[in-house]
Amino acid sequence: MVPPVEGGDAALLPEFPRGPLDAYRARASFSWKELALFTEGEDMLRFKKTIFSALEKDPLFARSPGADLSLEKYRELNFLRCKRIFEYDFLSVEDMFKSPLKVPALIQCLGMYDSSLAVKYLLHSLVFGSAVYSSGSERHLTYIPKIFSMEIFGCFALTELSHGSNTKAIRTTAQYDPATKEFIIHSPDFEAAKFWVGNMGKTATHAVVFAKLHVPGDQCHGLHPFIVQIRDPKTLLPMPGVMVGDMGKKLGQNGLDNGFAMFHKVRVPRQSLLNRMGDVTPEGTYVSPFKDVRQRFGVSLGGLSSGRVSILSLAVVNLKLAMAIALRFSATRRQFGPTEEEEIAVLEYPMQQCRLLPYLAAAYALDHFSKSLFLDLVEFQRGLASGDRSARQAELGREIHALASASKPLASWTAQQGIQECREACGGHGYLAMNRLGVLRDDNDPNCTYEGDNNVLLQQTSNYLLGLLAPRVQDGACFRSPLKSVDFLDAYPSILDQKFEVSSVADCLDSAVALAAYKWLVCYLLRETYQKLNQEKRSGSSDFEARNNCQVSHGRPLALAFLELTVVQRFHEHVHQPCVPPSLRAVLGRLSALYALWSLSRHAALLYRGEASDCGLTDRSS
Amino acid sequence: MVPPVEGGDAALLPEFPRGPLDAYRARASFSWKELALFTEGEDMLRFKKTIFSALEKDPLFARSPGADLSLEKYRELNFLRCKRIFEYDFLSVEDMFKSPLKVPALIQCLGMYDSSLAVKYLLHSLVFGSAVYSSGSERHLTYIPKIFSMEIFGCFALTELSHGSNTKAIRTTAQYDPATKEFIIHSPDFEAAKFWVGNMGKTATHAVVFAKLHVPGDQCHGLHPFIVQIRDPKTLLPMPGVMVGDMGKKLGQNGLDNGFAMFHKVRVPRQSLLNRMGDVTPEGTYVSPFKDVRQRFGVSLGGLSSGRVSILSLAVVNLKLAMAIALRFSATRRQFGPTEEEEIAVLEYPMQQCRLLPYLAAAYALDHFSKSLFLDLVEFQRGLASGDRSARQAELGREIHALASASKPLASWTAQQGIQECREACGGHGYLAMNRLGVLRDDNDPNCTYEGDNNVLLQQTSNYLLGLLAPRVQDGACFRSPLKSVDFLDAYPSILDQKFEVSSVADCLDSAVALAAYKWLVCYLLRETYQKLNQEKRSGSSDFEARNNCQVSHGRPLALAFLELTVVQRFHEHVHQPCVPPSLRAVLGRLSALYALWSLSRHAALLYRGEASDCGLTDRSS
Repeated sequence: MVPPVEGGDAALLPEFPRGPLDAYRARASFSWKELALFTEGEDMLRFKKTIFSALEKDPLFARSPGADLSLEKYRELNFLRCKRIFEYDFLSVEDMFKSPLKVPALIQCLGMYDSSLAVKYLLHSLVFGSAVYSSGSERHLTYIPKIFSMEIFGCFALTELSHGSNTKAIRTTAQYDPATKEFIIHSPDFEAAKFWVGNMGKTATHAVVFAKLHVPGDQCHGLHPFIVQIRDPKTLLPMPGVMVGDMGKKLGQNGLDNGFAMFHKVRVPRQSLLNRMGDVTPEGTYVSPFKDVRQRFGVSLGGLSSGRVSILSLAVVNLKLAMAIALRFSATRRQFGPTEEEEIAVLEYPMQQCRLLPYLAAAYALDHFSKSLFLDLVEFQRGLASGDRSARQAELGREIHALASASKPLASWTAQQGIQECREACGGHGYLAMNRLGVLRDDNDPNCTYEGDNNVLLQQTSNYLLGLLAPRVQDGACFRSPLKSVDFLDAYPSILDQKFEVSSVADCLDSAVALAAYKWLVCYLLRETYQKLNQEKRSGSSDFEARNNCQVSHGRPLALAFLELTVVQRFHEHVHQPCVPPSLRAVLGRLSALYALWSLSRHAALLYRGEASDCGLTDRSS
Repeated sequence: MVPPVEGGDAALLPEFPRGPLDAYRARASFSWKELALFTEGEDMLRFKKTIFSALEKDPLFARSPGADLSLEKYRELNFLRCKRIFEYDFLSVEDMFKSPLKVPALIQCLGMYDSSLAVKYLLHSLVFGSAVYSSGSERHLTYIPKIFSMEIFGCFALTELSHGSNTKAIRTTAQYDPATKEFIIHSPDFEAAKFWVGNMGKTATHAVVFAKLHVPGDQCHGLHPFIVQIRDPKTLLPMPGVMVGDMGKKLGQNGLDNGFAMFHKVRVPRQSLLNRMGDVTPEGTYVSPFKDVRQRFGVSLGGLSSGRVSILSLAVVNLKLAMAIALRFSATRRQFGPTEEEEIAVLEYPMQQCRLLPYLAAAYALDHFSKSLFLDLVEFQRGLASGDRSARQAELGREIHALASASKPLASWTAQQGIQECREACGGHGYLAMNRLGVLRDDNDPNCTYEGDNNVLLQQTSNYLLGLLAPRVQDGACFRSPLKSVDFLDAYPSILDQKFEVSSVADCLDSAVALAAYKWLVCYLLRETYQKLNQEKRSGSSDFEARNNCQVSHGRPLALAFLELTVVQRFHEHVHQPCVPPSLRAVLGRLSALYALWSLSRHAALLYRGEASDCGLTDRSS
């Protein structure tokens, strides 16, 4: 294991090298070191510094920005780097349990270096590794040390060529054969080929394959995960019956080898079934410890959330990097000015400020949110590990699922749009590959797609909120959730009666003002969505049709506004804690207000429209 | 010259090969052949078919979608292809004059094949070639045949490392030396290096270099264009004193070799000055045929417009290609459905329709607009060529400049956002390089930047409108422009009094309704911008500050709304002509209404806000 960086603040946060940014830095109203310490904490800064210092000194990680690397070479390099990261062993299992935030911090550091590396590492250790660990049982523990030594290299094979979002339509089968005590993994046709599987293209030796489990008598028990060896670890040649290959060039993340695989009646031992959710006896009888389908569903939701929370954190990294590049450029690039002789930095233009600064605020707010949601997830996973089967634990799973499902869209889109704005705001220089904005944009793009298309995921969140409103309207149930993100909705009738009563612009420069407006907005959208859904159903639409017809104009903005409110709320509370150093209060307060107002302003038409409507919920829906 | 494609409609518009799209095609309410004939006309369809057929048969143009081509190889291939296009000689000079729309059509066909090729061809023939032709005089005509035979290969060198948008700050000098009758071209330092020059990186032998012209006595006469040989056409080695090179990898358009150049006291003959705007006598006296600075400025604006109109047309091509890819995918990709057994095409989902169909409508509306604006530009250039120095000709130049300056931003952003939406709407498959959406996005991106940053350009359009309002308010002058795009503003006081009075959704499904709302919106924004500008000035801001402070919240939306209105207006008129075949009226009317309403809906907050304000212009500004 690499020893942590020693020394005091000067070693941890050395001064920037002198340069054209000095003038702007001298004008700052706060100490950047103080802000870094407040945002990260000394222990985390030291951890990140340890990682960066190791990579800086290692020639394998030497950068050649804008280089024209071939696909083959890039994939090879990325694999070697991933292996090296395991060798560095930056994070012990004990550390992981003591400071869980170091897990996303490590992924973020790798993402700062190269998204392809972060994702490759994440897929092997956290996605493949966690799937084996948490979906398997004691008999699968032998895999764990092999995963950390990279003796085997893994991937997670769920998506198929013709089905991604709709997992129920996955068609790979696993038929149990009691005669040999084996499962037969089979792809019925090429549309059922596993597809897009990261690490599968060139390097994975093992895959967690999701397949429909059949036992004799042709009973199907739905999707289950199996650990299947797909390549010989020595030669990397495919195992008999496995047709596996690389999907070729992608728009980005080209260091990652996404692959496809078809299985032709591949026989694996009965023990290959990762049997936490259900198992098959040697004789061929299906057994499951979960009697309650809803509970079983809650457990699987937890797994989905962890992927989405990781993506949230990767999107934030991309946004941060782009902001640093674009803001530094804007502070040094001079163009036009009050006179022909005097040119001013483009950062001085209100246009450039309006284009970039809201995304800077978004980076801070989303960074804080991603950490806090990760800690919520850790709480949930500890509950799972300790066998907590309380109602609170189940509710926590649902709440985190709803938050994670909307936070991946919000963060990946904010990063996507922010990076694009940075690219354009840097003019031609932003278009040069060596300036990295293109790579960031291309590498960020799959965050909008994998682990669920953004627009599809938002439906999970709007459904969650609608699911809470119905019992309230019908039985007067309370809005209550373990993390309290929906508790304010309890007062929705009085919130909807509130009017926006701020008289001056200066009074708006506090995120509390935007927060109040956001609460109104979410109540308004929830009521409108509920009414629209009921109206659709009354006019004869099926549930499927009714939801589809509501999603564009109602469900989608509802889910986004709810998540934005949650991000604003958490950041607002964070920057108004008593422990905030007095010298940072002003700048953090401004960041919080800027993010809140900017996000809110995109709903301005709804705020105007809402003012015109004043009918209560029960009037229409009853 | 390649002979045009012969044969009747069947050869010109053959049936599509049978496939999974048949079911959707059979459901169409109109004949796609009829629509193609109406949109393009038979002569144009034949011209495009000739080009595509030639490229399809030529192995040099064989495609390998998603291939991992090295930078060097791609640039070499693109140069060879560009040369081959000149050999094909698709468009004679006579044809160009007879059917000027064939010029953008040729560029669009090349852009459909590959943006790098279109831009390389455009830069050499139209940008470099036109600059020599229209900025030079008889003594420069010897270059023209060499340009078309590619005996010499050209580039247009205006931008420098530190200055792009602010051309007044360009610092390359051209000092006249009467002793040798030469100009000395010189780059004072590396910040004055010519930068981003397309074709300069590897292949150009000659450059039109913009430099500050100095005559003895150190008098500076501002920027002038010089034709400078930068490489030996045989060896491609740089000429003495010229340091020239390639800028390396970009986010896209990597077939195009963008370059930089520094000139170290490079001596060129006096005749190298492209002397249409001004000349230097052998003795060293500066002479210019243009006495009126405003007139001279009008002439140069014409040149700028032509670049912007070309970019508009390239952006439209990118959007069209992306739409075809995403819509075809959406009609065949099935995911989820009303029951677990039955999956439906993703195009059936209201969400997918809302994501894609407005961009389809935008492609039609902007395609029509780009052609009509090109024809306006041709009218203007014919006036220039015939020596028309009337007030109308000058006004036409200004109006086209205002339209072109906002149309490049509108089209390049619409394409940028549309392609991104297509990429995401195709899920993972959209992220695979071979499916081309990434290349389209990356190749479209510089359209937002070159020939003027989009946000900077919009200021040209808002300034044009404000410049017309001031004399109206002060002296009661009329709003009149040669193309009549501003004439409606004459009725602004009564337009501002109008209320939106449509009672049903069905009544909105006519672009006339959106048009009326757009007229109100532009009047409203113009009034608000004018008032805000005057208010800024009254409170002590300089003109520079006042304009900067108005641009984000006022000038920018004003310019965009005005251009959108113009696009909607022209498309509305186009699809409501008596010559529209009756069977196409419904579908074209729907496209027009969809584009108009969708564009307008993005200003919804302004429409609500405007309703609340009812004070007249003179009340506040006087």
